[in-house]
Amino acid sequence: MGTRVAILGLGIIGSSLGLALTQDTGIEVAGYDRDSETMEKALQMGAVKWTGSLQKLSAWADCIFLCTPINTLADIARQAAQFCRKGCLLTDVGSTKQDIVRVFDELAEMGLRGVGGHPMAGSERQGITGADRYLFENAVYVLTPGCNTPRSAVEELSLLLRPTGAHIITMDAEKHDRLVAMVSHLPHLVASALVSMLEGQDEAMTLAAGGFRDTTRVASGDPELWTQILLSNRRLLAEQLEAFMEELTRLKDILQAHRSLELHEFLRTARAIREAMPSKRRGLSLAEQELVCIVPDQPGIIGALGSYLGEKGINIADIEILRVREGDGGTIRIGLSREEDGPTAVATLQSRGIKAWLR
Amino acid sequence: MGTRVAILGLGIIGSSLGLALTQDTGIEVAGYDRDSETMEKALQMGAVKWTGSLQKLSAWADCIFLCTPINTLADIARQAAQFCRKGCLLTDVGSTKQDIVRVFDELAEMGLRGVGGHPMAGSERQGITGADRYLFENAVYVLTPGCNTPRSAVEELSLLLRPTGAHIITMDAEKHDRLVAMVSHLPHLVASALVSMLEGQDEAMTLAAGGFRDTTRVASGDPELWTQILLSNRRLLAEQLEAFMEELTRLKDILQAHRSLELHEFLRTARAIREAMPSKRRGLSLAEQELVCIVPDQPGIIGALGSYLGEKGINIADIEILRVREGDGGTIRIGLSREEDGPTAVATLQSRGIKAWLR
Repeated sequence: MGTRVAILGLGIIGSSLGLALTQDTGIEVAGYDRDSETMEKALQMGAVKWTGSLQKLSAWADCIFLCTPINTLADIARQAAQFCRKGCLLTDVGSTKQDIVRVFDELAEMGLRGVGGHPMAGSERQGITGADRYLFENAVYVLTPGCNTPRSAVEELSLLLRPTGAHIITMDAEKHDRLVAMVSHLPHLVASALVSMLEGQDEAMTLAAGGFRDTTRVASGDPELWTQILLSNRRLLAEQLEAFMEELTRLKDILQAHRSLELHEFLRTARAIREAMPSKRRGLSLAEQELVCIVPDQPGIIGALGSYLGEKGINIADIEILRVREGDGGTIRIGLSREEDGPTAVATLQSRGIKAWLR
Repeated sequence: MGTRVAILGLGIIGSSLGLALTQDTGIEVAGYDRDSETMEKALQMGAVKWTGSLQKLSAWADCIFLCTPINTLADIARQAAQFCRKGCLLTDVGSTKQDIVRVFDELAEMGLRGVGGHPMAGSERQGITGADRYLFENAVYVLTPGCNTPRSAVEELSLLLRPTGAHIITMDAEKHDRLVAMVSHLPHLVASALVSMLEGQDEAMTLAAGGFRDTTRVASGDPELWTQILLSNRRLLAEQLEAFMEELTRLKDILQAHRSLELHEFLRTARAIREAMPSKRRGLSLAEQELVCIVPDQPGIIGALGSYLGEKGINIADIEILRVREGDGGTIRIGLSREEDGPTAVATLQSRGIKAWLR
């Protein structure tokens, strides 16, 4: 019998975690959700082996993942603690960590070993229909031990999370919360504020191009979920907001005084910082070389394209349809795993009458 | 002999415009760029039929597109005007419109017909290597006539732009500049400011997930280009920045006072506004149905996938590799042009042993 993992809450995070962990035959995953249909779906897709009540699961488990909304975590932790076996590993997946780690530290007195957790992976999709076995692949997964957490607990949890393919890092809960205020909560608030400027401005919406949509994508997040997340980090978030407004005030002065060198320096630095960020990897298979081709718009064309390259042993790491014009043609961007395949790929496609070039 | 179009400046906009306009056999496109290699490339890719000096092109053309950097537009317009034939149509592709429209109004005295223009399409790529015949397809293209612009000029230009597939709208230059301050320039400044908060914060960068990258994507834009754009609209941009900071101050108060209902209402409204925005169409061929499948990671798999669906006459409108794990498998999202193809597509893939489901 393997490690017994109970997942409480089978939304996108809980169910994706289930799908990932069940890849390891040494782990048995059981799940609970207050919605019985969700439990049924989790069984069907194989995210959990069986389902049961919170009480039953808590008493059975070696490790409990709390995957319910952030404002319910403290309650669910305390409920689960009533039934847990001594030494049970308790962890959560909430977006802020100070509050729950404080609860874990309390519960340590009952013999539980609590470790805060925050898998930094998500999707616009919510609930179990967004479940994806690879959701955590290469994502950062932060563990935040409390004052009463034994070091062994962090090690055990890291080992257990191996099948997720996540990149585990450990830090203090307050530090975590300050950093996510900076990279997640402030950007969310700012994106929502940018969108709210467009209220009643229909013509502005017509002019909003792809850049605006990208900048404000996170504003489409669930308001209920984000109200709880932002409030749970309100002190540190307000501090970041204050610093951000100081920067905007400085920029306004630069603009009004037409200080072009300073503006240029600001934009140049921002770009350099962004370019230095770890790149967005979709998997271990990175695109080393990009090519673009123009193909006729007809059923099976993407298949044909892939076959031509596949026959030559060329692997497509990424593919994106840039534009399609029905009855005419489309522009497709293809990312190749190996840079050296570039010229062969272009030659192969051109020999089939497809206009192609390297980018 | 068709309409003679001269494109001055063969960067991404100028060369893409050339590629699009040459689709119309009734249009002859000639181009000029101060970089001779760029002119050579434009000839090679068929973006222009021939190249020549600014003087020669201006004297020859029925219509001149000014596609040089925004801070050079007024100068280039005046240079071209010295050689233009009477009644020549003069337009530009700059991101702000008040300044150039003022220049066009001056030049009207010389018999030129000027119309400001702003195709709201772009790419992170710059220069002629980013050229794409479909760049303007379904993009908004704003025309801003001046006080001295005859109505016929706007009509002629709209007709001429038809091969681009852009959605032409007409408005006053000041209104245009106010709206782009709101949907483009302010978001750019804000995204850059968000990135600049991370200066020297290596751990914050590690935690920056996809949401942060989306929110700040525009901050990777060319600093030189954006310095000029932002400065050219500094008065209206400073006004928007002021209004934006007022909103942030209000949000800070809401957070600090833990006013959860107001925060929820703010986030709910922002999401509703964003969802009401015209959706991001990549072409006329919209994905009506999405399916997700898990495939083994091997050369030619995307080809196989496309072939299986193509054999059934099912058209792929969009395809995206969500995640790939080398030697294991990948998750692929496929957008289908017709909703009714969904079930057949899933059945087809499943019969080939590929796990697939509708989203």
